[in-house]
Amino acid sequence: MATLAAHKKHKVTIVGSGNWGTTMAKLVAENTKAHPTLYELNVQMWVFEEEVTIPKNSRHYDPGSELANKPQKLSELINNLHENVKYLPNITLPPNVIANPSIVDACKDSTILIFVLPHQFIARVCDQLKGHIVPYARAISCTKGVDVSEKGIRLLSESIGVRLNIYCGALSGANIASEIALEKYSETTVAYDPPPMDSRNPTPKGSPTSSTVDLISPSKANPSARSARLQALPSDYPPLSHENVRKLFHRPYFHVRMVSDVAGVSLGGALKNIIALAAGFVDGLGWGDNAKAAVMRVGILEMVAFGKAFFADSVHTSTFTEESCGVADVVTSCMGGRNFRCAKMSIERGVSIDEIEQSELNGQKLQGTSTAYEVNSFLKSQGMEDDFPLFTAVYNILEGKVKPEQIPDLIERKD
Amino acid sequence: MATLAAHKKHKVTIVGSGNWGTTMAKLVAENTKAHPTLYELNVQMWVFEEEVTIPKNSRHYDPGSELANKPQKLSELINNLHENVKYLPNITLPPNVIANPSIVDACKDSTILIFVLPHQFIARVCDQLKGHIVPYARAISCTKGVDVSEKGIRLLSESIGVRLNIYCGALSGANIASEIALEKYSETTVAYDPPPMDSRNPTPKGSPTSSTVDLISPSKANPSARSARLQALPSDYPPLSHENVRKLFHRPYFHVRMVSDVAGVSLGGALKNIIALAAGFVDGLGWGDNAKAAVMRVGILEMVAFGKAFFADSVHTSTFTEESCGVADVVTSCMGGRNFRCAKMSIERGVSIDEIEQSELNGQKLQGTSTAYEVNSFLKSQGMEDDFPLFTAVYNILEGKVKPEQIPDLIERKD
Repeated sequence: MATLAAHKKHKVTIVGSGNWGTTMAKLVAENTKAHPTLYELNVQMWVFEEEVTIPKNSRHYDPGSELANKPQKLSELINNLHENVKYLPNITLPPNVIANPSIVDACKDSTILIFVLPHQFIARVCDQLKGHIVPYARAISCTKGVDVSEKGIRLLSESIGVRLNIYCGALSGANIASEIALEKYSETTVAYDPPPMDSRNPTPKGSPTSSTVDLISPSKANPSARSARLQALPSDYPPLSHENVRKLFHRPYFHVRMVSDVAGVSLGGALKNIIALAAGFVDGLGWGDNAKAAVMRVGILEMVAFGKAFFADSVHTSTFTEESCGVADVVTSCMGGRNFRCAKMSIERGVSIDEIEQSELNGQKLQGTSTAYEVNSFLKSQGMEDDFPLFTAVYNILEGKVKPEQIPDLIERKD
Repeated sequence: MATLAAHKKHKVTIVGSGNWGTTMAKLVAENTKAHPTLYELNVQMWVFEEEVTIPKNSRHYDPGSELANKPQKLSELINNLHENVKYLPNITLPPNVIANPSIVDACKDSTILIFVLPHQFIARVCDQLKGHIVPYARAISCTKGVDVSEKGIRLLSESIGVRLNIYCGALSGANIASEIALEKYSETTVAYDPPPMDSRNPTPKGSPTSSTVDLISPSKANPSARSARLQALPSDYPPLSHENVRKLFHRPYFHVRMVSDVAGVSLGGALKNIIALAAGFVDGLGWGDNAKAAVMRVGILEMVAFGKAFFADSVHTSTFTEESCGVADVVTSCMGGRNFRCAKMSIERGVSIDEIEQSELNGQKLQGTSTAYEVNSFLKSQGMEDDFPLFTAVYNILEGKVKPEQIPDLIERKD
């Protein structure tokens, strides 16, 4: 029996066009060009349309032009200049990045949707997309974080998957966007583990093959984790194996490791912000590099314990201790990230993080502080604050209940 | 049957009195005082005798004293001033640290010998001690590193153990001595795994109980790893369990985790220096924090692979990925250690590491460069250079055979 060769190609859409989204569009478009048998050349990038004036310090600013100082549509600017002058200035995008202000049109017929949106826009955008995507599409969430509350933990990838009734994986790592845009070397971790679906069987017309799967293993935190019916990829597409998904992201300057642990990858990107606050507190006290490294190490082990406690079925220790989304992202975040810097500043100046957020971030909240509060509220509801002494210490420092100097004592193992 | 209670106490000697040795003496003496049923109060510290003049900026310098500007014996200065004015100035030592210029007298009747000597002095000091220690003594090596050559790998703890025919464990971690001396918070890892010996059975007079053990599991690197007859600790001493050994080192500001993996702890302290060079090269190129974190992560995994390849029977992945002697020591070394700084400088100035060693270290060799050469010579002899692309890249950069810019390409996994 002859093997039915794949004759379709995957269409890829980047959902988002900020700093990180535009960087993703650039590298993915480089890869669709490099792998023409797998992917359609053109990569759609959904742009939340806005009127933008080319900044005077831009290489595209021409004072003699009649368009100088005139607001223009961001999507048109991107397609004309091959540059996102507002969110990723001075980086030339490949011509096969196509900015599109219509979310529905940008995602039409796409089999791969790469979500790179601020956390708070995900629900709204998914609602707009619902019913307008192919049912066998696959998604990857590049937005870091999880939704944690007293009630439980929901991964962003799960939120996307549930809202669109598709499978969604996750990408996370030590990934400062501006460095990657400049093609400075970095690594990332992509978690992609759809349920087994045999793509060699052509989907019968009108009755697509589907399989019932848990989007995420049931966990203590999500006792009601529901099953969803996911539709198999038709067999005339190349399979979305780890190897092929890796080819969509891997570049000579952006090394990808594929894993199956979506929960671990997602938790790493959220919990590292709490660790960065702890490292900042300790550094602000002038305790030196030993202390900072110790807090990072203890934090990584609390990440592992958190994953094991609430996602026991799916989380691997190695995701945190060996992958870019774990140890490396912790390192980067504790070397110079915003959470680290603000926490350090708060100790050095003897003021609260609230005040630093007011003075340094125009009142914008740090990811770390909101995650520390959310995680604490959840741990309290589980009666497990004492099992995570560093996370709990950070919360109590933010609340003014304990002092940073108490961290060693609070995290000391008494055995 | 009544349990025979331990009625003897362990006598502890610190073999070495440099910066790290004196710091160790301070914290161990704090602990012998805190645990009087286990340890004799006084801690002997062997001092390589030298004539020292109290520095003019010392708090002990008294221009009116007849001893001002006169050389005095270092051991006497330490015992009179309770300070090592030469190697750990401005730190007050507990009065139960007793400096002793005689190695044989300092170690007489000691059941616990803590080695904190520069690498190159270990063999000579052991030779001086041979025959002058109790046969059931136990040792801990606090000197980092391993002896690697074309012929194989020998842990320093193994060198000590073999020379003295006693069991020797290892202590290593993210431990910058000056920070610990100031009681700034840090952590360490102590590996201690003597063969099972039942200390409840009193040793018959004249025929001490002994047992035959491998000091270290046979490995590919040490096919001839020999067995040694180790003498059991008499039962009138408190057992040297993990719990009791931990009490000798653990302080509120110095948290100890006990493990059994002596090879892993020792390898971590040696191989991290190669990683620090790689991180320095990448940072010197201005590649940013993503790249630095990536190199550190890849380096930790090469540590794991190295341990597994050559000490498969005894090494645990978690020693490298979860303990202070692994991940945390890598972090500290790559944040500001000497290897890191010199490697970075060599790239920024466009000169060889040799030249940096000449100009910045008076020709003293970096630990990282010698380790990189030794490890490469060993890997070559095993035909395994390609299995350790980062270690091999560092060697080839030192040799001028490849450029630091090639690191991403050299360590890229082609799967």
